[in-house]
Amino acid sequence: MAAFKKNGMQTVWFENPPVIISTASVAGPMEGEGPLGKTFDKVFNDTYYGEETWEKAEQRMMLDAMKKALQKANLQENDIDFMLAGDLLNQIISANFTARALPIPFMGLYGACSTMYEGMALGSMLIDGGFAGRVLVGTSSHYNTAERQYRFPTELGVQRSMTAQWTVTGAGAAVLAGKGNGPVITHATIGKVIDMGQGDPQDMGAAMAPAAADTIVRHFQDTGRNPDYYDLVVTGDLGAYGKKLAEQLVKQKGYEISGGFTDCGILIYNGSQDVHAGGSGCGCSAVVTCGFLMEQLKTGRYKRILGIGTGALLSPCSIQQGETIPGIGHAVVIEAR
Amino acid sequence: MAAFKKNGMQTVWFENPPVIISTASVAGPMEGEGPLGKTFDKVFNDTYYGEETWEKAEQRMMLDAMKKALQKANLQENDIDFMLAGDLLNQIISANFTARALPIPFMGLYGACSTMYEGMALGSMLIDGGFAGRVLVGTSSHYNTAERQYRFPTELGVQRSMTAQWTVTGAGAAVLAGKGNGPVITHATIGKVIDMGQGDPQDMGAAMAPAAADTIVRHFQDTGRNPDYYDLVVTGDLGAYGKKLAEQLVKQKGYEISGGFTDCGILIYNGSQDVHAGGSGCGCSAVVTCGFLMEQLKTGRYKRILGIGTGALLSPCSIQQGETIPGIGHAVVIEAR
Repeated sequence: MAAFKKNGMQTVWFENPPVIISTASVAGPMEGEGPLGKTFDKVFNDTYYGEETWEKAEQRMMLDAMKKALQKANLQENDIDFMLAGDLLNQIISANFTARALPIPFMGLYGACSTMYEGMALGSMLIDGGFAGRVLVGTSSHYNTAERQYRFPTELGVQRSMTAQWTVTGAGAAVLAGKGNGPVITHATIGKVIDMGQGDPQDMGAAMAPAAADTIVRHFQDTGRNPDYYDLVVTGDLGAYGKKLAEQLVKQKGYEISGGFTDCGILIYNGSQDVHAGGSGCGCSAVVTCGFLMEQLKTGRYKRILGIGTGALLSPCSIQQGETIPGIGHAVVIEAR
Repeated sequence: MAAFKKNGMQTVWFENPPVIISTASVAGPMEGEGPLGKTFDKVFNDTYYGEETWEKAEQRMMLDAMKKALQKANLQENDIDFMLAGDLLNQIISANFTARALPIPFMGLYGACSTMYEGMALGSMLIDGGFAGRVLVGTSSHYNTAERQYRFPTELGVQRSMTAQWTVTGAGAAVLAGKGNGPVITHATIGKVIDMGQGDPQDMGAAMAPAAADTIVRHFQDTGRNPDYYDLVVTGDLGAYGKKLAEQLVKQKGYEISGGFTDCGILIYNGSQDVHAGGSGCGCSAVVTCGFLMEQLKTGRYKRILGIGTGALLSPCSIQQGETIPGIGHAVVIEAR
């Protein structure tokens, strides 16, 4: 048996931990101006990225990130067994149209902003399970496409609440492989959908925090590890308020993570950028993981990271029909080798 | 190695073929009146299914199908390692809200109408790879939720073209397991996204046919099998026109499937029901597979089925922006044991 999951646990262990042999990130102008700007492979200055619409710009971003990840690993498309991707747009058109341009067997995912981590977890299982030698994983988001789909067209200039987050314009991609050089994925903890009754779509960090905390706690329980095993526990896009909440919820269960806990949505912008509670979107955890976190693992600054992709599973329709906001968190352990 | 995929192929083989230990199907009034009505576990007579909105009705359908599948297998929720589900609604809210009611680690999928087969393929890999003992897979669609999201609210009474299909109101669920009694999944062939330039959203069968044909041909090439190995080759929802096209495209590649080829979208309604080119939607292949096809496998009428879930990867936005319609097809081999 190449890999296993202990009965009743949410965590899978990889016997031969899949290697992240390359990653790539493409980011928009605001993300380029932020503190992580230099960690991205490409930063563009026009939110249209040379395309006619923001949706097409988002597709081009994802395609560029996928191609760059392949190029950095010296691989062709036919060297890849499966592509796993998704995004925030209705019917995940960014991923589907990117996959149209890449002749690779494709499986579409939707985990809202947790999609990059869902993809890394699933891709690792496909590799360690013996079904693939290499898997290409990626996600994207775009501020302008997300705003007009989920909230208001940006041209309207509608005021945003201080708990709201700023959807990252960016795409990240990773090539996972059964062998090679790079950081490895040793575990994945798959989250449950959790809804504590938060119904304000302007405060998605609070909606996602309980799910993130639940997955973090389950990870520690399943593995018997303590927070100090990790150099960093990093969530995807809880933002400033959600991060605080998650920290408290994890503490209530007996684990103190505050010493080494951050959030990609907090890392990606600086205080002078008017993003309110921080960054969000599929692209947020994707570009921070594929850019900054990989750099830190490769330079030895961090050796063991517990990353948790976080997703708010709402739709405009579910909110209009009076529903609260379910959240989910998928965790992946990445270790330098 | 518990399972393997030969280099460069799209098909995975399962060494210990996962067992479909139970399936369940819940269907709406029109589907109940169709020729397969008696094969569904539950048929309801009001498209609202006792809920305030059609979206909530769709969620209830999926939840009922999931619970029924568990019940038929004498299992509780905590006997399941992973739930894999998706649907057609924006941000797959039917699946997400169903998962909220089931405390099972959850991974969301989006493969348009191919989602049931994407889920069965992925679920089988997780089981045969050693990551799960049991996986719950399901999808749903609802005529009224799909029409108002993709086309026009049904209250408007807009005329439909003769190539258009009728979105099935129904949900199907299956419990896959490493051991047990029932038909088994021996292979899965993961499709590529293919777009031959068809841009008419009123004719999605034609848009999906090339992808379905490509996956069918790849399956025969990868396995070295001929169509006569199977008692039935059955696509998800190509409808009358798409099925003909797929048959021709497969024939051009040297394989004659016409002797035992049908489509779930053709099977589910009878000629007197005003559905134009046939049924479609995530629920179409789901209820036909979980209802009729399982019955045929269990009674011995069919021993070997090649099922191909077919998805049209468009969105209303992609159509408005002038895009053509990419398609995908994922195949799964189901054999009676």
